[in-house]
Amino acid sequence: MTDQRYGLDRHVRLTGPFRLDGGGSLAEIEISYETYGALNANASNAILICHALTGDQHVASPHPRTGKPGWWTRIVGSGKPIDPDRSLVICANVLGSCMGSSGPASMAPDERPYAMRFPVITIRDMVRAQAALLDHLGIPRLKAVVGGSMGGMQALQWAATYPERVEAALVIASSARHSAQNIAFHEVGRQAIMADPNWRGGDYYNAEPPSAGLAVARMAAHITYLSEAGLTEKFGRRLQGRDAKSFGFDADFQVESYLRHQGISFTDRFDANSYLYITRAMDYLDIAEEHGGSLANAFKGTATRFCLISFDSDWLYPTAESRAIVHALNAAGAPVSFVELSSPFGHDSFLLDQPEMNRVIAGFLNA
Amino acid sequence: MTDQRYGLDRHVRLTGPFRLDGGGSLAEIEISYETYGALNANASNAILICHALTGDQHVASPHPRTGKPGWWTRIVGSGKPIDPDRSLVICANVLGSCMGSSGPASMAPDERPYAMRFPVITIRDMVRAQAALLDHLGIPRLKAVVGGSMGGMQALQWAATYPERVEAALVIASSARHSAQNIAFHEVGRQAIMADPNWRGGDYYNAEPPSAGLAVARMAAHITYLSEAGLTEKFGRRLQGRDAKSFGFDADFQVESYLRHQGISFTDRFDANSYLYITRAMDYLDIAEEHGGSLANAFKGTATRFCLISFDSDWLYPTAESRAIVHALNAAGAPVSFVELSSPFGHDSFLLDQPEMNRVIAGFLNA
Repeated sequence: MTDQRYGLDRHVRLTGPFRLDGGGSLAEIEISYETYGALNANASNAILICHALTGDQHVASPHPRTGKPGWWTRIVGSGKPIDPDRSLVICANVLGSCMGSSGPASMAPDERPYAMRFPVITIRDMVRAQAALLDHLGIPRLKAVVGGSMGGMQALQWAATYPERVEAALVIASSARHSAQNIAFHEVGRQAIMADPNWRGGDYYNAEPPSAGLAVARMAAHITYLSEAGLTEKFGRRLQGRDAKSFGFDADFQVESYLRHQGISFTDRFDANSYLYITRAMDYLDIAEEHGGSLANAFKGTATRFCLISFDSDWLYPTAESRAIVHALNAAGAPVSFVELSSPFGHDSFLLDQPEMNRVIAGFLNA
Repeated sequence: MTDQRYGLDRHVRLTGPFRLDGGGSLAEIEISYETYGALNANASNAILICHALTGDQHVASPHPRTGKPGWWTRIVGSGKPIDPDRSLVICANVLGSCMGSSGPASMAPDERPYAMRFPVITIRDMVRAQAALLDHLGIPRLKAVVGGSMGGMQALQWAATYPERVEAALVIASSARHSAQNIAFHEVGRQAIMADPNWRGGDYYNAEPPSAGLAVARMAAHITYLSEAGLTEKFGRRLQGRDAKSFGFDADFQVESYLRHQGISFTDRFDANSYLYITRAMDYLDIAEEHGGSLANAFKGTATRFCLISFDSDWLYPTAESRAIVHALNAAGAPVSFVELSSPFGHDSFLLDQPEMNRVIAGFLNA
């Protein structure tokens, strides 16, 4: 664990059985992950970063398929808030995804892809898989677990499930449960995928995938990642490569062109069944429900330090969701700091240039 | 015009040519409409109601296909804010729709359905078709034009296009232009329809229609008709007909079941191509743009009285959109009253039981 190269693209196969919240189990699981930096002698400098719904383990190194830079190079890097010169930074592709960890596209024991035979998983199942990875790596305890959006849900679930293994949890633009509106948007995406005849009940791995349905799902989701004001600032009613309206059904408006591009390019890098499974895991999230209906109970007696960050224009996981978590942590007597940052860019703000966010992250992690 | 029966389900074929904003024209148009009440001797008591995107002319009489009561019986009826005992109430199915007025499902001169050969239309084209209907009915001037959502867009467009024919305009939960976010949601719906292989470039009238795509479009739109708080109040995270999560992809949550029902039932009553054309017309709406970029110019010197109503939880056409219209009317020196009503039910509030709205409508129309 002393290799300091960036972006190691590691892969491990762990033997189970891994019992899942839904009642099923997996005999073994594969996890693909990246590490940056090195573990210190007493294994006390590990920071786990959890990725979002369509994210991946390539936090600070290029995506192997698209060649794009890592998704959080603003935060992770030498001299940055999460610094591999000081910490071992780990990010694992979540269970159910399609970037190397076990998911519906993986081979089942019968040597055919699981497809919809893959068991439905939860955010807690994802976290348990990460814990198994840390066991494998000889890391008993995390200096911090950090994530935005679904990554924040995992960070929170980490603190609730393994309080003794988490020194600090940083939860950005996230929620402890999916609201009716959150579920509704995900359901639209799932129905779009399942309505695509190429979906074939999930058995498309040797055929044409349901790209049209997946693109529509991504388009709908993308609207929720941006704010109304952000869309207005970015696109307004400006036309795309033309001087006048075409009075047709082409992408006249820039915002249409942008959405179509987001939809189509997504299908090159993501598996439709994984989209079904991960959105389902998020919809099932309700950490309070796992603790007798009280979110405070989930964190009773915890020694973990918490930091929550929300963005004022985020309507997917609005500040009220972060505040509900802060209130529960207060009630549980946990040390917590909370800041709502101002940004016009909605939910996606946590992926963008937000100097104030960087300062908060650095301050919290290096306290 | 003295027949007092309710719900006459009238139909008229008007000879053109009707020139359209997009440059095309229609040699003739058909309009299906309902009337309630009777025109008085000097033809001064006509109120035109304009319907919303997926609405119809059956304001206060049962829908002939679904058997459901008229969509605004709370507002239109004897002793109600819009009273057929005193006014001739007219509602016409909009151009481009599928309830009897000319649209993509209509027969073209070559005796085949227009499908995508139907010209792209605008809100102003819809209004011009209604004006032609009023000419046919011998109604030179409206006591009032009234509408919610896309109906409000038409009411506003009526006042801008035919100021001398509109005594009063009542615009509810609406906007003078479609925002980037509005366009984005519509584009998702259109892409869902066009991604359905049954759409076949619009030529499905002798085959299976693109119901799956249309259902997804309707589901996405439906989320925008309700508020986050309204969805939470109505559904929360309650399960549908079960005691525990199924850990599968059925509609576990009530909100999923509700959305699926909304999507599927919509396909029984609406034509997918009409959905494309009418959403496009709404996206093209920008009344200021038609008047040199100034909304105030659209209403300069008008004698029309205006009333605007918005709902505080409407995030599709939020209060800010109504306020922008009010500011323009103020700048134009037009008489205008404006009220933002409180309701947890989002955009759809204008269709629901809102006693305060009823009082405002009655007060304005009978002033």
